[in-house]
Amino acid sequence: MTFVADLLANVSRRSRELIGWRAADPRGMRTPAEIAGLARTLLSQRGEASGVALARDILDSYRALDADGRTAVLMQFAEAFGADRAKLEAAIAAYQADPGPAAAAQLHDAAEPRRQELIRRLNLALGGTQDLVHLREDLLERIGAHPGLKLLDADLVHLLSSWFNRGFLVVKRIDWSTPANILEKIIRYEAVHEIRDWDELRRRLEPEDRRCYAFFHPQLDDEPLIFVEVALTADIPAAIAPLIAEGGTAMPAEEARVAVFYSISNCQKGLSGISFGSFLIKQVVAELKRELPRLTTFVTLSPVPGLAAWLKKERRTETGFLLDDERTILAALDEPDWRADPARAARADRVLARAAARYFLTAKTSGNRPLDPVARFHLGNGARLERVNPGADLSDQGLAQSHGVMVNYLYDLARIEDNHEAYAGRREVVASPAVKKLSERKG
Amino acid sequence: MTFVADLLANVSRRSRELIGWRAADPRGMRTPAEIAGLARTLLSQRGEASGVALARDILDSYRALDADGRTAVLMQFAEAFGADRAKLEAAIAAYQADPGPAAAAQLHDAAEPRRQELIRRLNLALGGTQDLVHLREDLLERIGAHPGLKLLDADLVHLLSSWFNRGFLVVKRIDWSTPANILEKIIRYEAVHEIRDWDELRRRLEPEDRRCYAFFHPQLDDEPLIFVEVALTADIPAAIAPLIAEGGTAMPAEEARVAVFYSISNCQKGLSGISFGSFLIKQVVAELKRELPRLTTFVTLSPVPGLAAWLKKERRTETGFLLDDERTILAALDEPDWRADPARAARADRVLARAAARYFLTAKTSGNRPLDPVARFHLGNGARLERVNPGADLSDQGLAQSHGVMVNYLYDLARIEDNHEAYAGRREVVASPAVKKLSERKG
Amino acid sequence: MTFVADLLANVSRRSRELIGWRAADPRGMRTPAEIAGLARTLLSQRGEASGVALARDILDSYRALDADGRTAVLMQFAEAFGADRAKLEAAIAAYQADPGPAAAAQLHDAAEPRRQELIRRLNLALGGTQDLVHLREDLLERIGAHPGLKLLDADLVHLLSSWFNRGFLVVKRIDWSTPANILEKIIRYEAVHEIRDWDELRRRLEPEDRRCYAFFHPQLDDEPLIFVEVALTADIPAAIAPLIAEGGTAMPAEEARVAVFYSISNCQKGLSGISFGSFLIKQVVAELKRELPRLTTFVTLSPVPGLAAWLKKERRTETGFLLDDERTILAALDEPDWRADPARAARADRVLARAAARYFLTAKTSGNRPLDPVARFHLGNGARLERVNPGADLSDQGLAQSHGVMVNYLYDLARIEDNHEAYAGRREVVASPAVKKLSERKG
Amino acid sequence: MTFVADLLANVSRRSRELIGWRAADPRGMRTPAEIAGLARTLLSQRGEASGVALARDILDSYRALDADGRTAVLMQFAEAFGADRAKLEAAIAAYQADPGPAAAAQLHDAAEPRRQELIRRLNLALGGTQDLVHLREDLLERIGAHPGLKLLDADLVHLLSSWFNRGFLVVKRIDWSTPANILEKIIRYEAVHEIRDWDELRRRLEPEDRRCYAFFHPQLDDEPLIFVEVALTADIPAAIAPLIAEGGTAMPAEEARVAVFYSISNCQKGLSGISFGSFLIKQVVAELKRELPRLTTFVTLSPVPGLAAWLKKERRTETGFLLDDERTILAALDEPDWRADPARAARADRVLARAAARYFLTAKTSGNRPLDPVARFHLGNGARLERVNPGADLSDQGLAQSHGVMVNYLYDLARIEDNHEAYAGRREVVASPAVKKLSERKG
Repeated sequence: MTFVADLLANVSRRSRELIGWRAADPRGMRTPAEIAGLARTLLSQRGEASGVALARDILDSYRALDADGRTAVLMQFAEAFGADRAKLEAAIAAYQADPGPAAAAQLHDAAEPRRQELIRRLNLALGGTQDLVHLREDLLERIGAHPGLKLLDADLVHLLSSWFNRGFLVVKRIDWSTPANILEKIIRYEAVHEIRDWDELRRRLEPEDRRCYAFFHPQLDDEPLIFVEVALTADIPAAIAPLIAEGGTAMPAEEARVAVFYSISNCQKGLSGISFGSFLIKQVVAELKRELPRLTTFVTLSPVPGLAAWLKKERRTETGFLLDDERTILAALDEPDWRADPARAARADRVLARAAARYFLTAKTSGNRPLDPVARFHLGNGARLERVNPGADLSDQGLAQSHGVMVNYLYDLARIEDNHEAYAGRREVVASPAVKKLSERKG
Repeated sequence: MTFVADLLANVSRRSRELIGWRAADPRGMRTPAEIAGLARTLLSQRGEASGVALARDILDSYRALDADGRTAVLMQFAEAFGADRAKLEAAIAAYQADPGPAAAAQLHDAAEPRRQELIRRLNLALGGTQDLVHLREDLLERIGAHPGLKLLDADLVHLLSSWFNRGFLVVKRIDWSTPANILEKIIRYEAVHEIRDWDELRRRLEPEDRRCYAFFHPQLDDEPLIFVEVALTADIPAAIAPLIAEGGTAMPAEEARVAVFYSISNCQKGLSGISFGSFLIKQVVAELKRELPRLTTFVTLSPVPGLAAWLKKERRTETGFLLDDERTILAALDEPDWRADPARAARADRVLARAAARYFLTAKTSGNRPLDPVARFHLGNGARLERVNPGADLSDQGLAQSHGVMVNYLYDLARIEDNHEAYAGRREVVASPAVKKLSERKG
Repeated sequence: MTFVADLLANVSRRSRELIGWRAADPRGMRTPAEIAGLARTLLSQRGEASGVALARDILDSYRALDADGRTAVLMQFAEAFGADRAKLEAAIAAYQADPGPAAAAQLHDAAEPRRQELIRRLNLALGGTQDLVHLREDLLERIGAHPGLKLLDADLVHLLSSWFNRGFLVVKRIDWSTPANILEKIIRYEAVHEIRDWDELRRRLEPEDRRCYAFFHPQLDDEPLIFVEVALTADIPAAIAPLIAEGGTAMPAEEARVAVFYSISNCQKGLSGISFGSFLIKQVVAELKRELPRLTTFVTLSPVPGLAAWLKKERRTETGFLLDDERTILAALDEPDWRADPARAARADRVLARAAARYFLTAKTSGNRPLDPVARFHLGNGARLERVNPGADLSDQGLAQSHGVMVNYLYDLARIEDNHEAYAGRREVVASPAVKKLSERKG
Repeated sequence: MTFVADLLANVSRRSRELIGWRAADPRGMRTPAEIAGLARTLLSQRGEASGVALARDILDSYRALDADGRTAVLMQFAEAFGADRAKLEAAIAAYQADPGPAAAAQLHDAAEPRRQELIRRLNLALGGTQDLVHLREDLLERIGAHPGLKLLDADLVHLLSSWFNRGFLVVKRIDWSTPANILEKIIRYEAVHEIRDWDELRRRLEPEDRRCYAFFHPQLDDEPLIFVEVALTADIPAAIAPLIAEGGTAMPAEEARVAVFYSISNCQKGLSGISFGSFLIKQVVAELKRELPRLTTFVTLSPVPGLAAWLKKERRTETGFLLDDERTILAALDEPDWRADPARAARADRVLARAAARYFLTAKTSGNRPLDPVARFHLGNGARLERVNPGADLSDQGLAQSHGVMVNYLYDLARIEDNHEAYAGRREVVASPAVKKLSERKG
């Protein structure tokens, strides 16, 4: 353990005590206009100490507002704190008169929206980073209705990316000896396969063939940013139920050959778009390899959230890839209990597998990326689409979003860079030969 | 202790192990031009994983260069990574066509020197922050001879300020149970009153009337950023020797009324201009108040580095403030042993006290700030110039820089904000009535 | 944090890894006679390393036995490992020939049952202490049926007392940020007022007017020895329900005047009779006083487990202290729903209060101690019986054991020593004037 | 890290604060007789809380005494706190009347010197264990002149052995990031090869081919019990100078094949005879094997403290094993500069090697153990005498005690048990064939 690490033990709580963070503030409510006024004062100030108190006042006052009040403040921030127009135009004139690098740098400064300096100064309040993450959560809820917030969002993303850069993230194993106040957040934030109670949580953490890892950040006290749940198995799994069912027997960790990332959950809505999932997975792969050198394969067992919607459209398209008898078979999907008859389910699964392979390899966004968001995440990380598993998730949600299909993405550290370049550069969907063949199969 | 704090225990060392930081790289030497080429590649890349490795390669290659090679790389970074001129001019045109906030934001982006993105990407290398601090140290050594580096310096300061913002700094008491590898850095970095060996270090740390506090940062492993040494005393001290002499008896900490900050040392040259001294002092004042509620007074005992040089000029100026008999008395200063005769030394000290008060209150930079850099630091923090102490530092250095004069600056938490505003806003030198009176005395 | 404390971080787990503790041992089952044979070998050995392995073998083999096998081993240990008779008689002869201190010391050695050395050597196995605590738990279950085990029990108590002496116990606050594997033990071991699930646990730990503290021991990994639950209140409470009910509002901790110890649970049956409850309470009182200086009163809210049984007998005794009309009133107790009628309950409570006071002050064991075991514990600690609260515990168990009566014991640190001496020396039941008066009331 | 380990962080310091350990006690000096009186009171008390304070009073008062006063107290403890004679004789009578195990156990109790209970109660004082270790240090200084202290010593050894049993010892690597207050104790306690200053300490700790490990105990705050210094090398070393010289180059730790234990120092005189060195070495061997699996050989490089004295006698004995020409060669040893002439030194070394082998294999104590105390330690641990190295320690001390001879003891974990049994059981000096052959060589 390094010396510095040791020190950090005291930082958050103590500095708050010392400088005096008031949880509840007796000052009266402030209006959005008053808050914007305080923000202007904050920007005009030189003294850092009074700035810290003022920043806290602004953040507390913002938090005390109702939904409409918050919208009003966010709109104010977005609209009234752009660059100083006169200054900007003077800098443009200066640049045009003598277009050197110094003038360009000056122009850069002059063009900086005052929002950015405002966000930086708000961040100096104790607990300011946490508050800005919540503020961005508010913003994202409103951005559809208020596109004027986009510029403010861009500024927040720019600065949060800098403060949440990978160097500050800390990976930590979560297990049954983790403090309860962290564990209850794992229950709450699990986004893929719901954890119903403490007993289920325990089944996912305590057996020796289970692992869970999360990223934390020094300024987000006791708040995981993202976490991944891992099962150690003998083979690449083809279904989720056996992994999360009650009453299984744990396999000795040293005997496992495969590590399965079966659930990845982001915890902070206010940090969406600021991605650390890729780092987490790679760090966990490295960590597991070190601890269990006999592990040879690192895969996910992932949902396919866009398949059902896409297939619905395909089934309506006469000119699509589906053959007529496939269409007939898939008609089963429209009945509530279509899996009750095993033969019928098997026929449907066969068609679904081919459809899923087509979906991944051919369904694209306008930017020529895979339509499936989970695919974009893993392929962007340098993983390979390894296998399609029909009948893998028979939960209501699994049936609804993908008719039960799940897939495995393979993380092969030796290939990650190449895969990433193929995907990011050549827009290639990196897939195993089996998946490719499946996609090319004619019915 | 918070959960997050606990985690940080493992971060630095572990992540290096996991992802594999190579201390020494067997790859051949790269030329400055090659390094600039790599930097261009780094900027053009999309993949974060390969980017991390490339950033490390650039930093390692830079470090392997000799002094001239480093100069060449720095000049390349400064000159060849400005904003893209075509893009910038297009953005200007777009803004001029439709000068709204969106166009201003676009202009801001277009005007950003590519140096900033380069620095951000270098920072993602493991240990990147540390390397950038060293790189800036190199830059500061060359900036006098190569003014073209100024723009690069501005970019570094901008980004380092963000990464070293107060929220990430951790204050830690340094004492005799601190790890030896940290303590040896305290010996090395002490810049005000030299610590000759481990015994002297121990005298400054172990007695119960001594304290030492430092700031650390999670990405600068085992490296203090700044530290302050404190003596607890009964009264405001008028001389440094009793505070650092051998063989004194410690006073019970609870009986002390005064905390004296007698030495503040910055440790990282590459962070000069990125100020945290003010935060450290305020945090230590708060910490000491909490631990020892009977402390009433927080002062420094500070050097006056510019006094002798300024006084030399004054003595040559016929029209200055010095009276004729004062000039005669100060002639003593030109003799090596002028303090040997106590009566003569006392006469000189009386004149020196008046001169020092004049120096602080009237000698100004072109920006109308006090000429004395230590005064600028403490007054800027909101301290008050409290007392002038002639004969306070009889070391060679003390006599050379200020003829032995030291001063006390007073930190009164209740007055800090007002003092700061007076200084920063009205350019006032905040001083005690006694010092003001001394400065106005006619001979 | 001291350096040594820091080190202990690694001890248990690591040393086990290093020297190789086998959780499961593939060796075949051993019979009780074989185990006794191994014990004899262990005693005859000189080598500490082989001793450690042999001790582990014995403890593992013991653990693998069924109930009868364990009884047999315990009986063997009790009966076949007494002092060596020949040696003892020679020592007696030597002492009688020359009765000095050296001969007495030799006699002491010769009279030591070999059981003690056996226990000491078993304790050197890794995890040996934990196993010996379990072994004593087995023993206590059998001691009624097998009085021959008493001598072995005395030896275990003698040695466990030494190893669990207060210097090794560590008090730790238990709260909602405590690891889940510890918290589940709090749920399991709560012996006074059942904790039904994690939500109820949370209600006892998380509100700011709640505290929980436990003792731990370095050789009992992750196992609390005893814990106490505390509520902070405005006044001395007269009933348990408001303290453990759902949905209350927490009082700000700084406003509390009273700390109520409302549940104390021993966790390790194998340590019964080795008392640390007294130390825990005193340490918690000191800790709370330091944290919340405005607390003035430290009391328990305690059950009265023996009251109903005693009163049943009293009600049958014609010559007892009960008046005739009291007997009539108490007849209500024989009906299942006697508290349904408030007036009747109030009449009964009045009589119960007087009866309880009599019970505490006059009902004694053969050793002239109070009959009530909880009273013996708190009075033995130096507490004072402060107040009798009828109708304080209306749970099934509370009604069954004491017709709903609970009492407060007061811990006044300034009086604890005197109270203890009065109780331990003069066998006095230290009680408040109010309780005394109540006990002396004539009906 | 286990939960319990984490807790221990607070124990020592905190519990002292809480219950109030007074470092300096204003109460007047007590005489030895008064202290003995307090000890009698302590034994007669029932209350544990007052007992704790009284125990502290006794220990503080003892510590305040001068040397004679301490002697007097120790003699009192030794002589006036034996078993109660009347009680003992009654117990003898009871045993003789009915000599069963219960009577034997009673006799054991009755024969216990009250010293033991006194020591147990003193140990309950906060810091009591540390004080008892110091008290035993005083006792050992006096035991030669006052043989009456032997019984007290036996009681102290009995109880300290129990409290310092292996389960409580914590092994910790000592390196350059260890707190300075621990490191200064390493400098002070190094007993084999002096560490002159912090630079020399650093040379022994920081290079990657060096290790140092110490044992600590939770009740001896910040005090190492014993430590061992290790060098990692390519081959078994034949001389000490290269291991501790200035200016060497470190070998990469992974390339080392041999771990050399070149210095083992006990730190606490008051714990002499309570042996943990064996455990430390074995634990360090296990630890190093785990960290550096390519290490194949674990040896010491040890002094031979008794060789010179024994050889002096041998050289005077006409009938000894020395041949006449050997006697002539060894005459060189009487001259101060005998190693100046390399040829002469080589001849002497050849004879010294044979003499040393004889010394180890034939020179015995009255108990038929090797005369050499270091040999007794390592052979008792199960090591094997591996190699004799003449000219290995040319320091003044090395030449004085063994004419420069050092030896290697080999720790082969697979053979340790057998070696130990051979040594402890059959009194065999386990030595390598080479050493045996050397010892049998005829001149």
